[in-house]
Amino acid sequence: MAKESQERNQIALDYGPVQTAIDELTGTFGSRLSVSSDVRERFGKDESFHPSIPPDAVIAAHSTEEVSDIVRVCARHRVPVIPYGTGTSLEGHVAALHGGICINLLEMNDVLTVHAEDLDVVVQPGVTRKQLNHYLRDTGLFFPIDPGADASIGGMAACRASGTNAVRYGTMRENVLAMTVVLADGRVVRTSKRARKSAAGYDLTRLFVGSEGTLGVITEITLRLYGIPESITAAVCTFPDVDAAVDTVITTIQCGIPVARIELLDDVQIDAINRYSKTELEVAPTLLLEFHGSEQSAAEQAEMVQELALDNGGSNFQWTSNTEERNRLWQARHDAAYACKALQPGGTIWATDVCVPISRLAECIRETREDIEASKLIAPIVGHVGDGNFHLGLIVNHDDPEEQARAEALHERMVMRALAMDGTCTGEHGIGYGKLDFLIAEHGDAVSVMRSIKNALDPHHIMNPGKIVRH
Amino acid sequence: MAKESQERNQIALDYGPVQTAIDELTGTFGSRLSVSSDVRERFGKDESFHPSIPPDAVIAAHSTEEVSDIVRVCARHRVPVIPYGTGTSLEGHVAALHGGICINLLEMNDVLTVHAEDLDVVVQPGVTRKQLNHYLRDTGLFFPIDPGADASIGGMAACRASGTNAVRYGTMRENVLAMTVVLADGRVVRTSKRARKSAAGYDLTRLFVGSEGTLGVITEITLRLYGIPESITAAVCTFPDVDAAVDTVITTIQCGIPVARIELLDDVQIDAINRYSKTELEVAPTLLLEFHGSEQSAAEQAEMVQELALDNGGSNFQWTSNTEERNRLWQARHDAAYACKALQPGGTIWATDVCVPISRLAECIRETREDIEASKLIAPIVGHVGDGNFHLGLIVNHDDPEEQARAEALHERMVMRALAMDGTCTGEHGIGYGKLDFLIAEHGDAVSVMRSIKNALDPHHIMNPGKIVRH
Repeated sequence: MAKESQERNQIALDYGPVQTAIDELTGTFGSRLSVSSDVRERFGKDESFHPSIPPDAVIAAHSTEEVSDIVRVCARHRVPVIPYGTGTSLEGHVAALHGGICINLLEMNDVLTVHAEDLDVVVQPGVTRKQLNHYLRDTGLFFPIDPGADASIGGMAACRASGTNAVRYGTMRENVLAMTVVLADGRVVRTSKRARKSAAGYDLTRLFVGSEGTLGVITEITLRLYGIPESITAAVCTFPDVDAAVDTVITTIQCGIPVARIELLDDVQIDAINRYSKTELEVAPTLLLEFHGSEQSAAEQAEMVQELALDNGGSNFQWTSNTEERNRLWQARHDAAYACKALQPGGTIWATDVCVPISRLAECIRETREDIEASKLIAPIVGHVGDGNFHLGLIVNHDDPEEQARAEALHERMVMRALAMDGTCTGEHGIGYGKLDFLIAEHGDAVSVMRSIKNALDPHHIMNPGKIVRH
Repeated sequence: MAKESQERNQIALDYGPVQTAIDELTGTFGSRLSVSSDVRERFGKDESFHPSIPPDAVIAAHSTEEVSDIVRVCARHRVPVIPYGTGTSLEGHVAALHGGICINLLEMNDVLTVHAEDLDVVVQPGVTRKQLNHYLRDTGLFFPIDPGADASIGGMAACRASGTNAVRYGTMRENVLAMTVVLADGRVVRTSKRARKSAAGYDLTRLFVGSEGTLGVITEITLRLYGIPESITAAVCTFPDVDAAVDTVITTIQCGIPVARIELLDDVQIDAINRYSKTELEVAPTLLLEFHGSEQSAAEQAEMVQELALDNGGSNFQWTSNTEERNRLWQARHDAAYACKALQPGGTIWATDVCVPISRLAECIRETREDIEASKLIAPIVGHVGDGNFHLGLIVNHDDPEEQARAEALHERMVMRALAMDGTCTGEHGIGYGKLDFLIAEHGDAVSVMRSIKNALDPHHIMNPGKIVRH
């Protein structure tokens, strides 16, 4: 399906003379504009299996004004603009499907203002989440969203990232307070003031969060921050089957226990970790949990979940608030991605995700696992199960057309299964150009509303064209 | 400013023959369509001081299909469509500025499906929040958003309502999972599936939340629910001045204490309550708090806040988890609106709100109080201070042009003060047609983005015209 979309999007469109734009921009940006094939190749590729589709030039921008200047030139010549952060996206978000100018935002990496009393911070888009938390280390505050990769805040906002502790702290949707955005005609707007809530007009902040660069370039972001919890307690527990683990999750959420992270690793994933990390973890569906709060409340949460886990046949429940021990308990989770990669050195990992209402999660995972087995493919499962979100790390040799076809069919069935359960085709990876058809399967006529918005704000489709919405 | 907007919006536009639409719809809806002047008068008015501007007809719709039928007829004849819930809005949201058909949604009041395991519920738009919580009473779940009035869920979604416990549970922005919306051409779309999170395309749910009926009519809403906390603890505390109270709030939020409600009543408000309720509360800035959690954690939260309050000069800290005692402690808050009304029986209450970053809240309230005094007006202050949101209950005799002008000038200064502090012109009441100019003052060029969206989704401005975005 991904391939098909790609082809459809490679139909030539009414774009203008990119070389004229490049010549004009070279005058302004000098050596910060690169047309070298190495650089272009690198900036046309994200972390997914999608191939590099290089832009015609890459420019490192240093300010909102510079981004605006670049977009104005591109708008005048009808040349595509592709924003680039760390390239850690997973659905080909940065591929230059129609050529054009890639704006490298990674050098716009200043933390501009920390408002400690307001629990917010203003950053440039190239600041990465680790850089931000390092910067904040002496303030007692932290930014919780953790999609795994050390992604840029701009990219995380553009892709509506979430990750392990969204169950407690929400996703980028809930944690971006305001943004500065360069529109398709080069105008600069701010989506919102810095108040915690507002009922003033359409929610432009939420419109740009998750727009994947297709409506504008995000050049400044105001984020919510949180006090570092007094105590962080980690726990781990194994279960006889995935259903028992998921039932524990459902009850935990329903009891209102404010768990900070709750991750499921299936037995295939645990087995992969044992092989990779030379550990001897019990090969069984495993929940890893983290609790934030006062020492008392974090401990209380852990005890309550332990009880729920035991009721569901869980065993080997361990918990600790000691930092070193905590890291040991969670090591398996940190090794999951590497362990996947090590499973079949020749193959690539096709990382994909869906998200379903939690009541359907056990069923969705069970059927998907049966399908993986029937498809004779290897695909460990890791899930942010508190949100109903899970990932496949599908190991595929993309050079083997038959295996590729089997993987695509499995993938399609997984997405359609999630949709049939009132779930979404992606909980956190986004659409890029890899899931265009699934977006239509999910939203139906509502995609036409998205298209109307795209056409209104970017009438010539110069902003990251071919992503989310087709021409 | 409000008056000026009203006049500007009453310029005749290119709308079609409303009588033709009424005749056509009478054929379908019979006695459910009313053109009686009493009914029209009632449906053209909300709870604010804005006068009734009656629609040409009112139709009670019973299904999404019926709403779609009405909108199709109106679209064909270019006749305005105004959705109506309980009419508890505060900025003239339901005024038929250009005439047209009012769709009364209050008879679409079924709770459709409770998904207890998923902690969500699907409702029709006419269900009120009290009705919903009554319906849920045996499930152990509740819907927390409480804007004061027993508003309809459809209206709350359309106006991005929040209220006293948004500090813990968020606003309608965070608590609507999905909606069914009838678009300006009568097409029906669903904004999202029922998964907790999604990265699939533009966030249509958040676009329609807070759109005040200007982009479509909301006919079905999926809401998040929460487990009723094991323990609810209430607390009250007085402070020497507003700054001390607000400082306590800031520290509470910064310490990550998950307070469920934190309300400020200023001394003017307390005095009004004493007069109205014959109580002898200490006339001083007062915080009312509520803590949700296990018995242990709710008590722990109360103790922690007590300590912070004492550090800030707070006194007379009382707290309890006993239901009856709790209601007694919070009685003052419940009486606040009535006490305001009783202050000057001849006057009307102009209820307005702004919201600022919490670090500026004390300053904003202090300057506003000084301004009220200098303006020789009476205006008690109540604030959802955990969010930086506060309300004036401005008592004005609208028949006295001089007093009205003084009130308008005070109001304008309050809003501009909030904007200068990086706040918003409304935290939860919305724009309607009362704050159109302030929306522009707040958003500047970003209003043109809103206008582009409006024009794209409702090219003939038939959906609640004159609200949020001018023609």
